[in-house]
Amino acid sequence: MIAKHQATLDAAVQALHGRTFFAAFPENPSPDIYGADADAQGREKFAAMRGQHFAELQQGEPEGWAGQEESPYEQVSLDIKYPFYSPATLVANAQETFAEWRKVKPALRAALLTEALEGMKSRFFEIAYATMHTTGQAYMMSFQASGPHAADRALEAIAAGYEEQTRFPEETRWEKPMGKYSISLHKTWRAVPKGLALVIGCSTFPTWNTVPGMFASLVTGNPTIIKPHPKAVLPIAIVVAEVQKVLKEHGLNPNICQLGVDADDHLITKELAEDPAIKLIDYTGGSQFGEYVESLKGKTVFTEKTGVNSIIIDSCNDLDKVAQNLAFSVSLYSGQMCTAPQNFFIPATGVKVGDTQVPYEEVVQKLSAAVTGLATNPKAGAHVLGAIQNPATHERVKQLSFDGGRSILAHSTVDNATFKNARTCSPSIFEVDASRVEQYSQELFGPIMLVIKTKDTQESIRLAAQLAREHGAISCGAYTTDTAIKEQIMDEMSLAGTPVSFNLTGGIYVNQNAGFSDFHVTGGNPAGNASFTNPEFVIKRFTWVGFREPA
Amino acid sequence: MIAKHQATLDAAVQALHGRTFFAAFPENPSPDIYGADADAQGREKFAAMRGQHFAELQQGEPEGWAGQEESPYEQVSLDIKYPFYSPATLVANAQETFAEWRKVKPALRAALLTEALEGMKSRFFEIAYATMHTTGQAYMMSFQASGPHAADRALEAIAAGYEEQTRFPEETRWEKPMGKYSISLHKTWRAVPKGLALVIGCSTFPTWNTVPGMFASLVTGNPTIIKPHPKAVLPIAIVVAEVQKVLKEHGLNPNICQLGVDADDHLITKELAEDPAIKLIDYTGGSQFGEYVESLKGKTVFTEKTGVNSIIIDSCNDLDKVAQNLAFSVSLYSGQMCTAPQNFFIPATGVKVGDTQVPYEEVVQKLSAAVTGLATNPKAGAHVLGAIQNPATHERVKQLSFDGGRSILAHSTVDNATFKNARTCSPSIFEVDASRVEQYSQELFGPIMLVIKTKDTQESIRLAAQLAREHGAISCGAYTTDTAIKEQIMDEMSLAGTPVSFNLTGGIYVNQNAGFSDFHVTGGNPAGNASFTNPEFVIKRFTWVGFREPA
Repeated sequence: MIAKHQATLDAAVQALHGRTFFAAFPENPSPDIYGADADAQGREKFAAMRGQHFAELQQGEPEGWAGQEESPYEQVSLDIKYPFYSPATLVANAQETFAEWRKVKPALRAALLTEALEGMKSRFFEIAYATMHTTGQAYMMSFQASGPHAADRALEAIAAGYEEQTRFPEETRWEKPMGKYSISLHKTWRAVPKGLALVIGCSTFPTWNTVPGMFASLVTGNPTIIKPHPKAVLPIAIVVAEVQKVLKEHGLNPNICQLGVDADDHLITKELAEDPAIKLIDYTGGSQFGEYVESLKGKTVFTEKTGVNSIIIDSCNDLDKVAQNLAFSVSLYSGQMCTAPQNFFIPATGVKVGDTQVPYEEVVQKLSAAVTGLATNPKAGAHVLGAIQNPATHERVKQLSFDGGRSILAHSTVDNATFKNARTCSPSIFEVDASRVEQYSQELFGPIMLVIKTKDTQESIRLAAQLAREHGAISCGAYTTDTAIKEQIMDEMSLAGTPVSFNLTGGIYVNQNAGFSDFHVTGGNPAGNASFTNPEFVIKRFTWVGFREPA
Repeated sequence: MIAKHQATLDAAVQALHGRTFFAAFPENPSPDIYGADADAQGREKFAAMRGQHFAELQQGEPEGWAGQEESPYEQVSLDIKYPFYSPATLVANAQETFAEWRKVKPALRAALLTEALEGMKSRFFEIAYATMHTTGQAYMMSFQASGPHAADRALEAIAAGYEEQTRFPEETRWEKPMGKYSISLHKTWRAVPKGLALVIGCSTFPTWNTVPGMFASLVTGNPTIIKPHPKAVLPIAIVVAEVQKVLKEHGLNPNICQLGVDADDHLITKELAEDPAIKLIDYTGGSQFGEYVESLKGKTVFTEKTGVNSIIIDSCNDLDKVAQNLAFSVSLYSGQMCTAPQNFFIPATGVKVGDTQVPYEEVVQKLSAAVTGLATNPKAGAHVLGAIQNPATHERVKQLSFDGGRSILAHSTVDNATFKNARTCSPSIFEVDASRVEQYSQELFGPIMLVIKTKDTQESIRLAAQLAREHGAISCGAYTTDTAIKEQIMDEMSLAGTPVSFNLTGGIYVNQNAGFSDFHVTGGNPAGNASFTNPEFVIKRFTWVGFREPA
């Protein structure tokens, strides 16, 4: 098993350090790669799961069945029921597996988990349709984000965990010269897992945001309970089933990795999180609950919470290309990405384009036109926007207004040729005053874009950095042709722990974070401390303990 | 500068991973190594500092002078005054240096700090006498712990910080194949320091426990304020002066590393710790204040607090050698080491020695006799015990009694030939009942040894592991000739995050932790989370932030 996956693991470790392009799982859902029938089969398998009990888990007799997923495209229930286990059962099951799992060597744990990712790969299309009909992501994003990109992020966590646990020797002979003699000790070390782990998923990226923490905790020897968002269970249930399958096949207890769904009449997250046996918690979601999780005593917590992402527009060479790029970024999955830009800082004096100063209003109208152009393009609009996951988000977008602000573009209906009931609308754009920080310092989830007219680029930088420092940010885009301004943005945003994409145009967007190259979330601001995948993300999951004895 | 120290740094990084014996600074205060006059000169320099103002710091005009050190050997004031600066001044000074220090590349920061350790080396003997007459450590320990061992721990932190900051590339070209074309990005990364750092020292190991956090914060680009314990300032003041000298010589602001002493009439630690600009805190000392520091919001905190260290005696080959080894461990620096053993778990059924079962009472009496033998040995007693740092500790030892317990050995006066007024006494030994956990679950600082009579070794292991998990532990010693018992102890103590030394006899003791080989404090139990030096100890001091732009 170790030999089978060693080359993949070694390549992944190397990629982590080279940070050049690397992908173990192809992102293109092409029949040439995945097989001629893969897509059709995946669609059929997903369709066949609807209205059924999900029976793939190997966690023993259920205490009940629960499920409340609904398709944002069809606005009807998926009617899939998952086995329910009380928190006490889940914890007891996990504790039973701890001695077994922690004694499996890191190299074998890494190999078994990589094997499970191969199982996940065989089900990328099922997962894609499951993701579409729970999150509202469009087909292509559903496939890529929930399938290959998530699997690569999982592999990244496995690789980082494997590397860190094998970075110090298992044993050595320590010989201290004392002049006429020497003292010799035989020393050994163990990377000791912290205990039980809990991963709390979100409704918009049920695998992509769950698998890094899940595989990081597992590879470091911690039995792991996955608590998905009740509205997005199926994609990760399939992944858990694949992990359990591999564990079982190798004579290990499948409860090393359990799915723990909420009951239909009550949520179980707090009860799980507060259980003293739970030592590690990964959380993705809103800041309020995230702060509760962070406040729990005696836990090591990794969070990805909300943030406000900024775009700083100072100067550029081609404003049309900039507008098109940014229109795509705000529209992609209807602004429901944690990396989606929200606040667009534009100087009142306008933007220098080549040798010309383009007036502020013209810049704003160009952005607005680009957003409208994309949303109304029948070949692109629906495929980029997808659907809005949560009806409450849709409602908020419809009701939104800003005291003293100006509506630049009202949201409107976008037709989806396949799904007539899709919960979709085009982005709305508002201009808010730079002095009204309270209006733009919170994340406004969904297809919402705010234009903030600043005195100059200095004010833009100051506000973007302040927002990131105080309220968190996961991405930042900047457009400037001035090297001094660029260095200033890098320095100030770096102090706010926010990565910056400069001058993106064409087919690459500020929203996208590439596995093995872009650290996702830095840990340097209130948006969270989980960084996919830097060493901290894995080493906090275990403890180095040494033993010594005269040699 | 980088070239000058690169070989040392590379060797240190290699040693960290090999974990074999390594020392850049010789621990033997021999004239052959340090020069014929080094000791005498150090003693004279220390003597000359007494009654004076410490004028070596380069922090600008003092706002006052403060100092309250007293020799535990002479029980008289050292009458040395240090420049006082208010917390606001210290923070403002540090903030002024941040832009400068964070822009120095990690390799140069590491080289400059290694250069400062060379300066420290030239003053090892001064530091030794300063340590003796503030902490009460005996001469040899003062020299080794405050000099070469501390410098090696500092180098270890520099090396770890240097390695972590250079573990990912500064820049790379990321090229994603898209079929007919590819997307190319130029990516760069910065290891961004967290901000200002504070290191809070303790009274017993003023350099050894301060320099790891100090050099870890500095090498990762954080301006650092050292707040020593008011009773043990001089040893670390000399180190800070040496760092400032190197900074100044290289055109950098000496306030990158400041000494911030308490005023004589008020302590400044809380005011410093609570300042929002302070982002990193290293703390060594009691658990109560440690928990206060850990509770502060918005800080990354590293602590070494109190713990209760256990010795498990199950079986051995030579009980006399075991008793001698343990008597030395409890006597060394009068039990004022964080690694000193306190609780000795001995089965009521006795201890298997070779093929013989030695009765419990005989084991206890052998330990007691060994402690008395060492304390009353005129050639060893005073040199091993040193003096008690704090009069309150001495008082507590004198008053100690345990409800329902049994006094096995009363403390007694130990003559010191050189210092007639030395605050020294021999260890006292009590037997307490295994069921009275509250009597032995707290750290009893000073020369105190508790014998806990257990049902059997299983109970010994259970209690030792429970104490470590619930109350913290930094060391554990175990004596067993049974491989199954040994594996059980390793497994259970590893889950309690406690390193174990097995079967130590002769000239190596459970108290000793070697730089570059033994992680000091694991982070796996309540005794603290600062581990000298694992990767976590340095990577939490900076944030990886990435930048990208079309290539």
